[in-house]
Amino acid sequence: MQIRSELTQKQIKAAAIEIFSHSGYDAASVADICAKAGVSKGAFYHHFPSKQSLFLEIMQDWLSGIDQMLFTNGEIYESVPQRIRNMGNLMGVIFRAAKGQLPMFMEFMVQASRDQTVWEAVIAPYRTYQQNFTAMIEKGKKEGTIAPQADADDAARALMSLAIGILLQGVVDPDVADWKKATISGVELILDGITRGEA
Amino acid sequence: MQIRSELTQKQIKAAAIEIFSHSGYDAASVADICAKAGVSKGAFYHHFPSKQSLFLEIMQDWLSGIDQMLFTNGEIYESVPQRIRNMGNLMGVIFRAAKGQLPMFMEFMVQASRDQTVWEAVIAPYRTYQQNFTAMIEKGKKEGTIAPQADADDAARALMSLAIGILLQGVVDPDVADWKKATISGVELILDGITRGEA
Repeated sequence: MQIRSELTQKQIKAAAIEIFSHSGYDAASVADICAKAGVSKGAFYHHFPSKQSLFLEIMQDWLSGIDQMLFTNGEIYESVPQRIRNMGNLMGVIFRAAKGQLPMFMEFMVQASRDQTVWEAVIAPYRTYQQNFTAMIEKGKKEGTIAPQADADDAARALMSLAIGILLQGVVDPDVADWKKATISGVELILDGITRGEA
Repeated sequence: MQIRSELTQKQIKAAAIEIFSHSGYDAASVADICAKAGVSKGAFYHHFPSKQSLFLEIMQDWLSGIDQMLFTNGEIYESVPQRIRNMGNLMGVIFRAAKGQLPMFMEFMVQASRDQTVWEAVIAPYRTYQQNFTAMIEKGKKEGTIAPQADADDAARALMSLAIGILLQGVVDPDVADWKKATISGVELILDGITRGEA
């Protein structure tokens, strides 16, 4: 039963992602999602109290997937600059995951700007990323690969901003540039600043 | 008559910005906008063929305002790195202009991802910014303030991405950081890379 229940949840989420991406969050109805997923409304509400809770769970899955990918590899054997480079290289994977999700992501943001619950659900993991980046750069200072005078918080923010800016542009205008190359090059520029250490 | 006509257009745009920001593009009706602006539907359609055309004009105004602010000052007497620093300092002004506009901006993006006309209207000025940045960095290479081995296109993209990422974060989560300081610091890190010139 447990397995079957998980399968139902997965089906509902997959259907919802498709419908949210295509029609938008506001226009998507629970009935549409149920029809697409092949489940009853009863089954839907057994798993998700509301369309919003489903929406938030999808977003949490997405964000925790990125978090895991970024922060749980190479903890042990790589230097911090190398880990940051590897994260840059993962941008291709993130792009593929984000493909076609832009409208839904934008709707999250619109919802977030109007609804405190959604806002907090967006902001909490984002702040965690930021803190993880800062901690990583502090670690680099301790291991001696990042210049002692680098401001860990500012450097982390620059890397996050670069990643967010590239992701947004890459999804909106995929063909204008080689975004993977742009990511790697941008990361190198920032690393250059924090490893050589401008006062 | 010309002046009066411009005044009417301004009133309609101001009313639309308020209504789009508050209720969203989809939910806003031409009737609401007319009521808020104190104009007749006849006057509205005299100036704007549709809600979408009004929406696009508002966006064009916004984008060309940024363009002018960024690229028409200090052309003559400043070095390119100094001009880029000044642009970083203008982030405070851009933040104030963007305040409260996030939902509308996000709706542009949602519209853009679903509608070719809107997409082109978003993408064209953005590509122009990008080209202006690239040209400016090329100019810096000529004047000798930017390292010859710097890739102008990649450097421009890094600066644009940083700015877009900071703007998005600063509007969504204004209180978590000193975004002006983060901008200046991020710009310095990238400048550091392109002025000293990593191979």
